[in-house]
Amino acid sequence: MQRILNIETAKKLNKKVKVCGWVNSRRDHGGIVFLDLRDRSGIVQVVCPSKLAKDIKDEYVLAVEGKVNKRPADMINPKLETGKIEIQVSKIEILAKAASLPFDLRNQELKVSLPTLLDYRPITLRHPKIKAIFRVQEKIIESFRKNMKDLGFFEFQAPTIVPVATEGGAEVFRIDYFDYDAYLAQSPQLYKQILVGVFERVFTVTRAYRAEPSVTTRHLCEYISLDVEMGFIDSWEDLMDICQILIYNIFSDLKKNCKKELKIFGQSIPSLGIPIPRLKLREAQEIIFERTGRDNRREADLTPEDEKEICQWAKEKKNTELVFITHFPSKKRPFYTYPDPEDPEYTLSFDLLYKGMEIVTGGQRIHEYEKLLKNIKKFGGKVKDFKFYLQTFKYGMPPEGGFALGAERITKQVLGLKNLREASFFPRDMARIDQRLSTLKPKNPPSPRLRRARKKND
Amino acid sequence: MQRILNIETAKKLNKKVKVCGWVNSRRDHGGIVFLDLRDRSGIVQVVCPSKLAKDIKDEYVLAVEGKVNKRPADMINPKLETGKIEIQVSKIEILAKAASLPFDLRNQELKVSLPTLLDYRPITLRHPKIKAIFRVQEKIIESFRKNMKDLGFFEFQAPTIVPVATEGGAEVFRIDYFDYDAYLAQSPQLYKQILVGVFERVFTVTRAYRAEPSVTTRHLCEYISLDVEMGFIDSWEDLMDICQILIYNIFSDLKKNCKKELKIFGQSIPSLGIPIPRLKLREAQEIIFERTGRDNRREADLTPEDEKEICQWAKEKKNTELVFITHFPSKKRPFYTYPDPEDPEYTLSFDLLYKGMEIVTGGQRIHEYEKLLKNIKKFGGKVKDFKFYLQTFKYGMPPEGGFALGAERITKQVLGLKNLREASFFPRDMARIDQRLSTLKPKNPPSPRLRRARKKND
Repeated sequence: MQRILNIETAKKLNKKVKVCGWVNSRRDHGGIVFLDLRDRSGIVQVVCPSKLAKDIKDEYVLAVEGKVNKRPADMINPKLETGKIEIQVSKIEILAKAASLPFDLRNQELKVSLPTLLDYRPITLRHPKIKAIFRVQEKIIESFRKNMKDLGFFEFQAPTIVPVATEGGAEVFRIDYFDYDAYLAQSPQLYKQILVGVFERVFTVTRAYRAEPSVTTRHLCEYISLDVEMGFIDSWEDLMDICQILIYNIFSDLKKNCKKELKIFGQSIPSLGIPIPRLKLREAQEIIFERTGRDNRREADLTPEDEKEICQWAKEKKNTELVFITHFPSKKRPFYTYPDPEDPEYTLSFDLLYKGMEIVTGGQRIHEYEKLLKNIKKFGGKVKDFKFYLQTFKYGMPPEGGFALGAERITKQVLGLKNLREASFFPRDMARIDQRLSTLKPKNPPSPRLRRARKKND
Repeated sequence: MQRILNIETAKKLNKKVKVCGWVNSRRDHGGIVFLDLRDRSGIVQVVCPSKLAKDIKDEYVLAVEGKVNKRPADMINPKLETGKIEIQVSKIEILAKAASLPFDLRNQELKVSLPTLLDYRPITLRHPKIKAIFRVQEKIIESFRKNMKDLGFFEFQAPTIVPVATEGGAEVFRIDYFDYDAYLAQSPQLYKQILVGVFERVFTVTRAYRAEPSVTTRHLCEYISLDVEMGFIDSWEDLMDICQILIYNIFSDLKKNCKKELKIFGQSIPSLGIPIPRLKLREAQEIIFERTGRDNRREADLTPEDEKEICQWAKEKKNTELVFITHFPSKKRPFYTYPDPEDPEYTLSFDLLYKGMEIVTGGQRIHEYEKLLKNIKKFGGKVKDFKFYLQTFKYGMPPEGGFALGAERITKQVLGLKNLREASFFPRDMARIDQRLSTLKPKNPPSPRLRRARKKND
């Protein structure tokens, strides 16, 4: 007999069906056992004589055959899509047994700490609220891809093994590459620029890596980067225009396609159609100073507190929780960032903040060969290391720029999650790759700094 | 003035337009210069008085304004979509200059060796025939994704930093992960299985890594893996059924959407609707022995020669160049592969060959917890290393399996390319990450074996 999905049983009244799934819960009433059977489509109630169900426990995997009956009126469950019917079992097959769960998956809220949530990731992901996070993330990525294609962008797959650290800084993972050193890409930046020279407009859904030497609520060592790059811009503000369209379309798609998930998290999508305010970093810092007395007016970036404050300002004054911060200092941006012709201490760059957190970063890039050579040297790089990349500019490159969205960050902000790790299936950080690293053998005794950071996370 | 794409000019007869792009070629005729301007949509001819064009060379990036005129009848180019018109320039702006190309990009065939093709990748990708390879690859991945979604599969993003080498063997890249060792994923195998426990049917487009210690025409150190995994299978043959549907749908999409690209490569799509033959490894080896006298009947896998021979057999006898090879020996497959209940020396596994090369590999997995524990030990693994993964099976997992397609391999076979590197934007191998590694400083003197293999590749 062909299996059907649980959700399809609602339309099979009085028919014989076969369904498969996990036992979500078991309730015994006299000689009868009620099983909630869970599959990818949802839950259906299975009614079973005790003798057929005697060995069956939570999370057992079953194949069930039976007749679809109407439930008695007082037994209807309006919360279930199959709430008006139940399956009267004629045959049960146990496809797999399961050990007793270390926590209860049936509560609406999964009441476990973050370390436990992640220690038991293969199981906690089965909880409907946790699963909902990743349905939203799938939709964010799907919407990103669809919108970029509609705008004429070519999708490419970026390499992740790279010969040099490109974004500067020490936060890069080293790989043993035969008898050479190689690195994990901090971003697909150089490759998306190269491909602007080929396809003009490109995007990629890729993995990016940062050897983040501290455990915070907002960083991951491996994350999903949604990267965009486009040539023939008239102005760097074109990039923010495209970014705004994209973000609004993603939000609008979520509003349409993730009603159930947003409801589970009690979140709503911000009103669209309002232009996102654009503030220079220095203007934002001035506003923050006026509102809080906190004087960060000479800092090169916003602090996490500042990011929250300026979004609060945007909410109060501009009726949006989104705000572009522009013109970051040259020394805080990578070598390829275009200097502002009006004041080369600053750059034609931007971050997009949402509900107090950066979710996008971008800017115009230097497309002139000679200028780029100079900047690589100025930033302490070796021209030789960038010889491959530099071909693009040596042989003709239009004015261009781009940006990158962090998929986990958008997911976190849209659903109001507390920690970025909750928005990553299998988060990697200084303290964890699936299992806690403290359970493995280190190569060398960890430094006091690493030990402190790990302790904080556990 | 708003830029339009070159291809759109064909509909703008007698109108004033602005176009942007690269100079594909320049031809001087008396006081007039003809420029072929290339953008992402194609080529348009620009007619220009010499004095306006005097500094302009190949690959310069231009913004051109002018009037769209009909070409004289004897000047019509039927090969170009804009072949009936030309743009009479009124204004030219040079957006970027370009150095003289080291080879000619205008020939229909790009006549360079493979090392040169890759040394100059940012530029050789601009050649229409090279670009076509990646348009086909984009479509293969797009079609894969669309088909999997239509079949109810959930798309996830797989982590690539992993704590243990999962597929066995030494061909794994080690990462310095703070003070621990970590590795680059040889496949997303364990994660896709974990997620079958959550979503039942999953797929991912991801990167996989093999520290392949030799340079061949069929291996890459970093490649695009199109991975599928599904639960609640009735038989392992369900997997081949799904795989066949998928491959045929991808081919059918290519036939529809890549006419131009297939024509450039002189390739056609095989006839669909024919069931793909399924041969046990031993049956295939017997056929090969009968046809060639080559006796590999006790080998654990097909040799590259064998793969070609058996596809030749399929072409002659079954009118298809696709063939499934099944029942590989247990010792040649990873620990998670399901043993054939009828003969546990062999497994419920398969490869799909196309035109003489493996493009898919898959099989049923062990879903029973105790059996899996035993097999990990049997294969020399430590249960402790797989504790995280094993949760999935400890807490109830249905019968399941899956497969993985190599995106570069399908691209290579569909287009009849000679070397897998041609189907990778930025191929990584023992001898190259963008630049040849021999131009960089090794950590240690390379071993004679590595040196020999590199020399062969250069």
